[in-house]
Amino acid sequence: MIRIALDAMGGDFAPVVPVEGAVQALREFPESYEIQLVGRQADVEAALAEHDVPQGRVGVIDATETIGMSEKPLQAIRGKRKSSIRVALERVKAGEADAIISAGNTGAVMAGSTLILGLLAGVERPAIATLYPTRGKPTLVLDAGANVDCTPRELRGFAHIGSVYARDVLGRERPTVGLLNIGEEEEKGNEAVRGAYALLRDDAGLNFVGNVEGRDIFSGELDVVVCDGFVGNVLLKFSETIAHLFEDMLKREVQPEVLRSEGMRRVFKVLDYAEYGGAPLLGVKGVAIICHGSSPARAIKNAINVAAQSVKVHLSQHIAAEMAGNGAAA
Amino acid sequence: MIRIALDAMGGDFAPVVPVEGAVQALREFPESYEIQLVGRQADVEAALAEHDVPQGRVGVIDATETIGMSEKPLQAIRGKRKSSIRVALERVKAGEADAIISAGNTGAVMAGSTLILGLLAGVERPAIATLYPTRGKPTLVLDAGANVDCTPRELRGFAHIGSVYARDVLGRERPTVGLLNIGEEEEKGNEAVRGAYALLRDDAGLNFVGNVEGRDIFSGELDVVVCDGFVGNVLLKFSETIAHLFEDMLKREVQPEVLRSEGMRRVFKVLDYAEYGGAPLLGVKGVAIICHGSSPARAIKNAINVAAQSVKVHLSQHIAAEMAGNGAAA
Repeated sequence: MIRIALDAMGGDFAPVVPVEGAVQALREFPESYEIQLVGRQADVEAALAEHDVPQGRVGVIDATETIGMSEKPLQAIRGKRKSSIRVALERVKAGEADAIISAGNTGAVMAGSTLILGLLAGVERPAIATLYPTRGKPTLVLDAGANVDCTPRELRGFAHIGSVYARDVLGRERPTVGLLNIGEEEEKGNEAVRGAYALLRDDAGLNFVGNVEGRDIFSGELDVVVCDGFVGNVLLKFSETIAHLFEDMLKREVQPEVLRSEGMRRVFKVLDYAEYGGAPLLGVKGVAIICHGSSPARAIKNAINVAAQSVKVHLSQHIAAEMAGNGAAA
Repeated sequence: MIRIALDAMGGDFAPVVPVEGAVQALREFPESYEIQLVGRQADVEAALAEHDVPQGRVGVIDATETIGMSEKPLQAIRGKRKSSIRVALERVKAGEADAIISAGNTGAVMAGSTLILGLLAGVERPAIATLYPTRGKPTLVLDAGANVDCTPRELRGFAHIGSVYARDVLGRERPTVGLLNIGEEEEKGNEAVRGAYALLRDDAGLNFVGNVEGRDIFSGELDVVVCDGFVGNVLLKFSETIAHLFEDMLKREVQPEVLRSEGMRRVFKVLDYAEYGGAPLLGVKGVAIICHGSSPARAIKNAINVAAQSVKVHLSQHIAAEMAGNGAAA
């Protein structure tokens, strides 16, 4: 039985939305997993009482403190030992849960995961991996914000971590890896990217296809795209507003019935980040999934599914094996 | 009379497309400007012979060499003294033209502009400025690729240059300036961005609104967004593929007549970079506009309009005045 610790106090409408996401997940996915709702017991139980919940697959773990969205991450994680994020992480650490999911303070989840779960051997920095809709299969882009500056070695680490995720969770064979740059030529880019190019090119353990540009992300021809967390974060937040821009424009220019059509709904569903179920923080011991503060219940539900899959395929163990082998940690 | 030197050999379908763009511009805009088509005389005249051209407003300037798209910029500009890009730049330098437009080798246009035209006093680095469609008025983002790494002082320079452009060409009063970052808080980002934050905040000559994120670019609430050329280039190339992604998805999901409707055409027109008429290279002496190699005639036409406007409002002189005043060059 896969056990998922869900931060019930994380996100803009906690605990109502996380609890609803958990209930949806238990109903829709017949996987054998249980969900541990971590948060203020009375509040969580009140939210839970609104639903018919499947017996034996959901429990409440009391955590009396919460970490606010604007609190300083490291300080909050260190100081608030009874916070829902920290209690959930401690459960994973202690082997009482296999995965943590939180839509709370992203910095606190990152700092807490690194501090409490620890990094897998051979991993220098964890990375947030995000899925982009494309003209073909979704493309995994990392890092999306865990690391502001990155060395060439760290970028190579992301390539390996991302490849394992693409293989294990996305089912891609020999995943292609592109290095995000401002041109295809080897000599393009800043020092870190040029250094990373040389490392990736010479790494026989990767299916490296060379430098790629911003225009290649939507092409659907890449499984993994590697970049530093500054570029990745700017790009992610930009991409998440594309659907809004498009909707705005369509509202002004096309008939309402077109906007409400089934086909258009499918288009917006592909563009909706909530469908992709949060972003895994890869490289830590265990499975950690970070969701938007504004995640609707559907996003939480999908994150639970991604977490369960990640545990089932032994993602964390496979990343550890990848980093120990093939010289990635050399 | 404003005189525009147009690289007739630049772009994927030269000289046909640049010549067609020039003809369209002369027909559609009643401005009093003349266009100097720079390129192999026989080829340009042959392309020109396909059109009825207004008398006295278009001339051909012979340039026997061309610079290929994959040639090394600096080497090509230095070595090919008779290349269309170089001849066009020399005309601006000599006061025989007021602006240069090229859809050729971007690096060569940048390097050539800096070398031959030179930088305005007080400008440390020129920047490529690009307009993004938004939910409101377009937003100017710079730098889009002229500089891979930037110091805080250079980023401040971009803020000033961009503000002048927003005022002069886009007609914005006291243009708002945002610094592209991965969070709103002052301490976010890499060293260069943190340093730039402090400089921008303390600069009374700017209407600085603080850090902005990827999600703010489409909001329509910003006039100018400043970033280094690596981030700006990745973002620009990514944004230019949004329309393709939509079109692809719509083709699969909605009726063909919806896709062909007038309203939908207006939507795609807003998303079409060709409507924005190339990207000015700001900070050089004179007006220089860089177009995509794949620019259709419509994009060249719009670039001609942007160049003419920039000359008319004395953009270059105003940037020089801005950089000389208010301590930006201090």
